Amino acid sequence: MREPAYTLTAGPTGGWPAVEAAMGAPLVYDYDPLFLERFARTERKVAELFRTAGDVVLMQGEAVLGLEAAARALVRPGMTALNLVSGVYAKWFGIWLAECGANLVEVEVPYDEAIPVEAVARALEDHPETTLVAVVHSETPSGVLNPLREIAEVVRAHGALMLADVVSSLAGEELDVDGWGLDLCVAGPQKCLAGPPGMSLVAVSERAWDAIRDNPAAPRGSFLSLLDWKDRWIDGGRTAFPYTPSVVDVAGVEAACDVVIDTGLQASIDMHRRAARATRAGVEAMGLRLWARDASYAASCVTAVAAPDGVDVLAALAHIRERYGVMLSPGYGELKEQLFRLGHMGPAAASLTPVLALAALGRGLADLGLEVTIGEGVDAALRELAGA
Amino acid sequence: MREPAYTLTAGPTGGWPAVEAAMGAPLVYDYDPLFLERFARTERKVAELFRTAGDVVLMQGEAVLGLEAAARALVRPGMTALNLVSGVYAKWFGIWLAECGANLVEVEVPYDEAIPVEAVARALEDHPETTLVAVVHSETPSGVLNPLREIAEVVRAHGALMLADVVSSLAGEELDVDGWGLDLCVAGPQKCLAGPPGMSLVAVSERAWDAIRDNPAAPRGSFLSLLDWKDRWIDGGRTAFPYTPSVVDVAGVEAACDVVIDTGLQASIDMHRRAARATRAGVEAMGLRLWARDASYAASCVTAVAAPDGVDVLAALAHIRERYGVMLSPGYGELKEQLFRLGHMGPAAASLTPVLALAALGRGLADLGLEVTIGEGVDAALRELAGA
Amino acid sequence: MREPAYTLTAGPTGGWPAVEAAMGAPLVYDYDPLFLERFARTERKVAELFRTAGDVVLMQGEAVLGLEAAARALVRPGMTALNLVSGVYAKWFGIWLAECGANLVEVEVPYDEAIPVEAVARALEDHPETTLVAVVHSETPSGVLNPLREIAEVVRAHGALMLADVVSSLAGEELDVDGWGLDLCVAGPQKCLAGPPGMSLVAVSERAWDAIRDNPAAPRGSFLSLLDWKDRWIDGGRTAFPYTPSVVDVAGVEAACDVVIDTGLQASIDMHRRAARATRAGVEAMGLRLWARDASYAASCVTAVAAPDGVDVLAALAHIRERYGVMLSPGYGELKEQLFRLGHMGPAAASLTPVLALAALGRGLADLGLEVTIGEGVDAALRELAGA
Amino acid sequence: MREPAYTLTAGPTGGWPAVEAAMGAPLVYDYDPLFLERFARTERKVAELFRTAGDVVLMQGEAVLGLEAAARALVRPGMTALNLVSGVYAKWFGIWLAECGANLVEVEVPYDEAIPVEAVARALEDHPETTLVAVVHSETPSGVLNPLREIAEVVRAHGALMLADVVSSLAGEELDVDGWGLDLCVAGPQKCLAGPPGMSLVAVSERAWDAIRDNPAAPRGSFLSLLDWKDRWIDGGRTAFPYTPSVVDVAGVEAACDVVIDTGLQASIDMHRRAARATRAGVEAMGLRLWARDASYAASCVTAVAAPDGVDVLAALAHIRERYGVMLSPGYGELKEQLFRLGHMGPAAASLTPVLALAALGRGLADLGLEVTIGEGVDAALRELAGA
Repeated sequence: MREPAYTLTAGPTGGWPAVEAAMGAPLVYDYDPLFLERFARTERKVAELFRTAGDVVLMQGEAVLGLEAAARALVRPGMTALNLVSGVYAKWFGIWLAECGANLVEVEVPYDEAIPVEAVARALEDHPETTLVAVVHSETPSGVLNPLREIAEVVRAHGALMLADVVSSLAGEELDVDGWGLDLCVAGPQKCLAGPPGMSLVAVSERAWDAIRDNPAAPRGSFLSLLDWKDRWIDGGRTAFPYTPSVVDVAGVEAACDVVIDTGLQASIDMHRRAARATRAGVEAMGLRLWARDASYAASCVTAVAAPDGVDVLAALAHIRERYGVMLSPGYGELKEQLFRLGHMGPAAASLTPVLALAALGRGLADLGLEVTIGEGVDAALRELAGA
Repeated sequence: MREPAYTLTAGPTGGWPAVEAAMGAPLVYDYDPLFLERFARTERKVAELFRTAGDVVLMQGEAVLGLEAAARALVRPGMTALNLVSGVYAKWFGIWLAECGANLVEVEVPYDEAIPVEAVARALEDHPETTLVAVVHSETPSGVLNPLREIAEVVRAHGALMLADVVSSLAGEELDVDGWGLDLCVAGPQKCLAGPPGMSLVAVSERAWDAIRDNPAAPRGSFLSLLDWKDRWIDGGRTAFPYTPSVVDVAGVEAACDVVIDTGLQASIDMHRRAARATRAGVEAMGLRLWARDASYAASCVTAVAAPDGVDVLAALAHIRERYGVMLSPGYGELKEQLFRLGHMGPAAASLTPVLALAALGRGLADLGLEVTIGEGVDAALRELAGA
Repeated sequence: MREPAYTLTAGPTGGWPAVEAAMGAPLVYDYDPLFLERFARTERKVAELFRTAGDVVLMQGEAVLGLEAAARALVRPGMTALNLVSGVYAKWFGIWLAECGANLVEVEVPYDEAIPVEAVARALEDHPETTLVAVVHSETPSGVLNPLREIAEVVRAHGALMLADVVSSLAGEELDVDGWGLDLCVAGPQKCLAGPPGMSLVAVSERAWDAIRDNPAAPRGSFLSLLDWKDRWIDGGRTAFPYTPSVVDVAGVEAACDVVIDTGLQASIDMHRRAARATRAGVEAMGLRLWARDASYAASCVTAVAAPDGVDVLAALAHIRERYGVMLSPGYGELKEQLFRLGHMGPAAASLTPVLALAALGRGLADLGLEVTIGEGVDAALRELAGA
Repeated sequence: MREPAYTLTAGPTGGWPAVEAAMGAPLVYDYDPLFLERFARTERKVAELFRTAGDVVLMQGEAVLGLEAAARALVRPGMTALNLVSGVYAKWFGIWLAECGANLVEVEVPYDEAIPVEAVARALEDHPETTLVAVVHSETPSGVLNPLREIAEVVRAHGALMLADVVSSLAGEELDVDGWGLDLCVAGPQKCLAGPPGMSLVAVSERAWDAIRDNPAAPRGSFLSLLDWKDRWIDGGRTAFPYTPSVVDVAGVEAACDVVIDTGLQASIDMHRRAARATRAGVEAMGLRLWARDASYAASCVTAVAAPDGVDVLAALAHIRERYGVMLSPGYGELKEQLFRLGHMGPAAASLTPVLALAALGRGLADLGLEVTIGEGVDAALRELAGA
């Protein structure tokens, strides 16, 4: 089989040329003075995208590592943790919270809806002992966005720590770590940054560090340890890593940050939103159904499309990949065979690329015998992209 | 500061051009059919280098992750584990064994010596309840090689599981996972493979899987879990990853394996040995002192050189890097300021590159006022490289 | 201004990833044994695409060099040369023929038509002294294809030498150098091969070599000399170049040939034809007018679209490039401001890419106030691409 | 056979990583606005290295093209041209001058000597009708440097045009096009710039343009035409190329210029000189004989070494390439089998790389049975590189 012509997935998504060039550059030693500088510089660039003056930890391993590290660092056995569930990833995160010994409280909504802020307030009233609240900002598996800013406001008022999975929202949705008072955020470079899928980008507030340091159960001397990075690298003057970082991934992440910074953070967010609007308009005009019940909380990173009755999602995607060289995503987890996901992150959100994803899905379904008004979908999407 | 002209370190080492090209290729989705094939194919290529017909797990994260994963998977609280210590990494590994709850027994020798096989036999006699033995094949921090084949023979006779850190020996030293009966081996791609420093390459025997499955303390549902890979990916028919693998690192690892396979595994080992012999001959002829007390157990991956009296290792290395663009390594851990390490792995072991490392070290020390007979060192090294 | 997201032009066109990787590889010496092998190997690969067992000359310089070299090599002052003109490039070629001293006879048709075979026969009857006939197979400036096979038949029957500009037809249109008896063909790698725009690929028959050798005016000891390549490189046993070839371009050309050979030459031609059909269907369904008067002779490499009345071609293209990041081409030469050209060569002919070009042109024109039925165009194109 | 580990030749030489990255970037259309900007910007960067405020023409084709173009542009049949010959390239250039119809006067010295300035003065006195003087600044085939500044002074005083082949001196030797009053200079990017071997970099003074315009024999409408570039591209406002430039080579040339400009032009020249000094010192200390009779005119780009009696140069180089992976050059033209040439241009002049070339040559000759004091050579070279 040939390489895909277009990777328009839920991530890893196709990268920017500058990212690919950076990762093809000569390998260097992690203690090369140039790499030490690059590592520290990349932390600050990631911090700029997070909008934080606080610490950023660049862990080696895709965002799942950062999320597990966060859970293990913050959960003390017996503490009460409120987990807000509007999708697959949040559900899985709750398993970690419980496994780490938290007394788990959950607010759960159907996976095609966002968490209502009032429900958070209510849960905190019901469980005033809650000291940690976890939420997924943008649920990549289903393309649903939660009102993080409003939720964080409630949580801060209550005094609990706010932990947010922003894996697929960084650089694609509004996010203001310091302004919103988020204590621990985990992002991934392989989503809206269109970088490599090998790192966890973690923002940690001073309050969060205090909590972690006070937690005897927080990992130390472990690949899962945030504290090792704090003690050895950050507070040690940035001369010693707790373990060998991936020099290649760091180069890729820096290049990805540079693309966003050169574009402008707000322009990057606008581009992702416009691509998402165009895709949603296209999907509906093609006669297909959006998964998110309300466009107001549809995510900027991917658009989830409900599979029409009788369509075998995986077979349809395999056909599209083989016949047209376009790689799209199915759903994820329990939603795997219920959804098509059209990714619009990084290059896939730029130019007219959203049209390619629509044409691929539409034509693929038409090949299988469905009636799809592809042209109308493309027209609608182009109007959005044109701002017409 | 400019990029280094030559990276002749203890790893990450400068990569092969084919590796760098592979990592600069377009990013793909982890569930792209091409990537699924590549991942499975890369497992078999790594297995070929390990000389095993058993399972290979490709974890996302440098070898320290694989080592921690191995310790957590195999150690049951209360079991007796024998740790063989001839260097910094083995010492650290013992801390994990103990932290996981093992009753730790150690055989320790000075860090410029190898473990004597008899000492292992004796320790097992003294501690017949031992069910796990851990050893570092090639101690990168000090360039010392342990007699893994002979040790494994003793351990198998005793019936314990044999866990080996082969991070820097794979493709550079003789290694025969199935033939020697090794149960769990962890290698790194950034050493003799001259690939990227972002993965753990783990060979697991059936006996080891049985032990892990029986161990209630073995991580499950965790970034540190070997079992997740076994259950979800390997036994699940290689269609679902436990988490997103780094598509970039896998491409780099496959390319690195291809270089070794094209060269021939034995030819690769011979090349590393010849480079090591040349470097040792050069060091001695320059009037410097090798760290390893006996050449018979000096490693093929790096040559450790005892710092001459009064020399500030880090300052000397900084001078060599700045003035000549050559990056060498200091010692590691507690040996950091006592050693220079000249790496000869991958491209750094090929061609006349060992001469560059010698010239850089020799001239760098001469600049600092030492008497170093550089020319004689280079002559001696070239004679070895020429087979003259 | 940012890099273009998509280069869908009349060439240089966006390259295959394998081509770009080959050109980013380490620079080598032209007399490196590996490069000598590569150069000879690339000649045979190009010959395979030409379908010739004869000599192939790889000149350093874009196809204009090869064409000038061909004219200067074959034209003897005073000979009669018949030039078949259906477009800008053929017209320019006639200027060279005359300048070299040929007694020039031309058959000319409007630039939206192909040369009728009968007109060639008639011209040869009228000018029986003709010893050279020149034709452009595929006129890139206007997307018109001439019936080369049939023309060549007439020319061979007459006994004249047949010189063909196949710059944009190689690998995109049927072409059989030996089978059709073509004496000298010049192709470019930056068209349907989707390689770099820095070489001339020249196929030369024995008859042509004889004529060149007999021609005292043929350049010798010159950058424009085909004979230098024949004498020094080909007949000299392929050990000495007449001048330094571009090691980078040769690497790119070889990689581009490999893509076509792996795909299959016929499959490559079919892909280009399908893309052209889809684009033409799309253009017409969008309510725009094709330039070629008859689809039967519309070229596979680019589709020329007549600019609607009142549209400023260059301004429209600049808008499309700036707003959507898509680079399309205007006409060329005297047709520059009368045409839009949508390129579909190499990657631009693969996958659903033709839809991108249609959407870009359609939406760009709509932004300028034209009524364009973009959706219908995309629907029509997709039906062709689907073979539906 | 494997790729060479080191390309330390007379050019094409191994490139800078930034150059290779630039050439592996996505192919773009030559009329993309970004490329138009890049082309114009690259002209100014090349001009900066030439130290000229005048026009720079970037022709597509290695320097031989630029040299032929210069000869054809400047020579009017019947004019008297003085050609200064101290090597193979100058000798060949005289053939062009004569072929273009010049009344050729030559000053020739043995190829291991430089042209004495007095001989130029004398020749001009003897031939006061001379209107063009040609010289090769740095003879790459034999590593001899002519006193261009002093020669130009004499030529200007006389009033003739000064044409200089500076192919291998640009960025490696002192050169001041405007300051020294050079009228037409041709450089190559594959020498001290360590770029790709596919372009001619030509500086043209106003006086030279006047002469070319007045010359009815100067090529027009030809790949060999400098005037086409002047009329169409430069004076046409830099919007139209006379033919398609190689977008890849231009990217490579710009990147190569950036490396030199970032380093500093003077620092680049100093680096080349130091590398040449080190290599000469090494050659002599190894007991071998330098070809240049006097170090004062030995070139900075390559060091030519006289082959010891009885040594088969090509066989020795093949052995060194095969056994050690190091590519060196033989002589060129009639000197081919009399010389070894150690290139030290770009990366090959940086770091300790000259030592590699010495070690490769020395060890290669030792393998063939010669007595070579390699170590002493390396010591001597390192002392020069250290400035000790």
